[in-house]
Amino acid sequence: MARRPRTVGDVGERGLIAHIQATAARSRLGDVGQIGDDAAVLSPAGGASGSGRAAVVSTDLLVEGTHWRDRHLKAAQLGWRALVANLSDIAAMGAKPAWFTLGLAMPPSQPLDWFRGLMKGLSDAADVFECPLIGGDLVRSSVPTIAITVGGLCRGRGPIRRSAARAGQTIFVTGDLGRAALALRILDGQWPARLPPLIRRTIVERHIRPIPRIREGALLGQLRGLGAMMDVSDGLVSDLQRICEQSGVGAEIDLDALPVHPSVRGACAKAGLDARLVAAASGEEFELLFTSPLPESWLRTVLPQDLGVKAIGQITPGREIRWFSRGDTVDLDPKAVYDHFSQGGGPARR
Amino acid sequence: MARRPRTVGDVGERGLIAHIQATAARSRLGDVGQIGDDAAVLSPAGGASGSGRAAVVSTDLLVEGTHWRDRHLKAAQLGWRALVANLSDIAAMGAKPAWFTLGLAMPPSQPLDWFRGLMKGLSDAADVFECPLIGGDLVRSSVPTIAITVGGLCRGRGPIRRSAARAGQTIFVTGDLGRAALALRILDGQWPARLPPLIRRTIVERHIRPIPRIREGALLGQLRGLGAMMDVSDGLVSDLQRICEQSGVGAEIDLDALPVHPSVRGACAKAGLDARLVAAASGEEFELLFTSPLPESWLRTVLPQDLGVKAIGQITPGREIRWFSRGDTVDLDPKAVYDHFSQGGGPARR
Repeated sequence: MARRPRTVGDVGERGLIAHIQATAARSRLGDVGQIGDDAAVLSPAGGASGSGRAAVVSTDLLVEGTHWRDRHLKAAQLGWRALVANLSDIAAMGAKPAWFTLGLAMPPSQPLDWFRGLMKGLSDAADVFECPLIGGDLVRSSVPTIAITVGGLCRGRGPIRRSAARAGQTIFVTGDLGRAALALRILDGQWPARLPPLIRRTIVERHIRPIPRIREGALLGQLRGLGAMMDVSDGLVSDLQRICEQSGVGAEIDLDALPVHPSVRGACAKAGLDARLVAAASGEEFELLFTSPLPESWLRTVLPQDLGVKAIGQITPGREIRWFSRGDTVDLDPKAVYDHFSQGGGPARR
Repeated sequence: MARRPRTVGDVGERGLIAHIQATAARSRLGDVGQIGDDAAVLSPAGGASGSGRAAVVSTDLLVEGTHWRDRHLKAAQLGWRALVANLSDIAAMGAKPAWFTLGLAMPPSQPLDWFRGLMKGLSDAADVFECPLIGGDLVRSSVPTIAITVGGLCRGRGPIRRSAARAGQTIFVTGDLGRAALALRILDGQWPARLPPLIRRTIVERHIRPIPRIREGALLGQLRGLGAMMDVSDGLVSDLQRICEQSGVGAEIDLDALPVHPSVRGACAKAGLDARLVAAASGEEFELLFTSPLPESWLRTVLPQDLGVKAIGQITPGREIRWFSRGDTVDLDPKAVYDHFSQGGGPARR
């Protein structure tokens, strides 16, 4: 009996990445194929950036059906989101976006209005966040696919990595959490409660026109003594775990301190859900999660007042992540929180 | 009666690119979206490269069925070719490749051996041409798709553009031409003549393991007074036309001077084809086409002897491109040459 040949699906994403890392490690080019940050770093020493300032590069592939569905997003919204997701990765390295390239694959039958809308959304985001399109490639494919590569430059200090969290540092998050997850459920028609139009709009806006923390990321990247940083892409629970794993530390988080948007509180109250858990699990928020030896009060004196950063916990020496509410431990199984909330919801996560 | 909405196929690649250029031109970011060279240029003044040295970036999307077929190339050969095509674009700007990112989309059913072979071919090329993989993205798609972005740095002079050809300059090409086109016909089983194994292998090798002119491009890029440069991707006839259009000049080419590989001469003699026309129309050669005020004899004293550049004609003041053979004009309609030779042949060109 012939055995079925093994497929990439049998190995899974982790297995594939491990193979890529092993292949890169065998290379005589030395320290390459470093994976695990929001963006790749071009070492100034290696001469790849051409200067003492480190440059960063981030690449994303978006595939129709996997990463977006036309019923969720108009083409212009898709273009905006596609660029913003990459810009957020650059911001999370403490760098300022400088340029992007666009690879676009589509069938000849793709509506012209879709293409125009996509370009409109991309160029709107490029304009607002000052990141010009400098080149690209147009090709034919049966599946519409968008490949974006963004380059950015670090100012002052080098890139801020996920592996730089140290025990004793405070954990911060920018802006608010929870709206992104609710937006997907609402757009999918899976939200149980009826919502006032204003609240609905405030929540949905987060998905259709997210704002990356470009200015915040670049400012934080210049701070002496910042620890680790990343953007909230898979949800605080998963993303904090990544920082802790890569830094070899643990964390204590105060659930009550999470910056939950009032609209999320309102919507969750109507649906009988714990807004804090929704906020903790919500992905694709494009907020920044970072650690710093500076306390919140001091950070507020260094950063512009309207930056909106909030302390939510501490980095601890162990490997464990513990969640608290009013002084009591809360059993927050990351997988359970994520699965509970994301099952059946919206487009696949990146 | 409802009108069918317009599609991107109705507008065509030129129309789509024009729309992208118009969108970029409306941007307040100024001189962006410059299209028409092998790679995009990060202006040093703009700060995008972070130094006085200009950086260049090139992006390609390769889609199964459109850009490759598994019957032509093993996965490792595909990986090699995919990176080499981009490296050649960097070389054509007179720059040295520095890094690349990989976006890879595939279905879970993709054979694991294919993925491993692809990574092997990519990392072989990365090692040989000293261009490390620094990051990327793995996603799911029903159509295997490879997105590669390569960054490079210019040394000495800035990037060499297609628009810098001037009347009186000599036209040069590196290496030899013709094998790439024959290789596709042979692999497709469309070659009329039987060939000795050594000749067959010499020709097919050009398709399955092409060598980009990295060293040559970087050396030429440092020469004072070099004119225009690009790599031979659509065939000399089409590519020369592009240089002339973008430079506002004409050209005279001596067909007998084209560097045709002996194996191509032999194969064409057996099939009753004019090897010079095959060489003139052959695309994806990864050779460099450039212009210079220096004559061939002088160029040979500046460049290492084994660089293998050959003078094939002159840039003229008019807009016309004229082809000669033994002093007589040859009527070489670019479209006819291309169509005649490429019809039904192999994978679509990029």
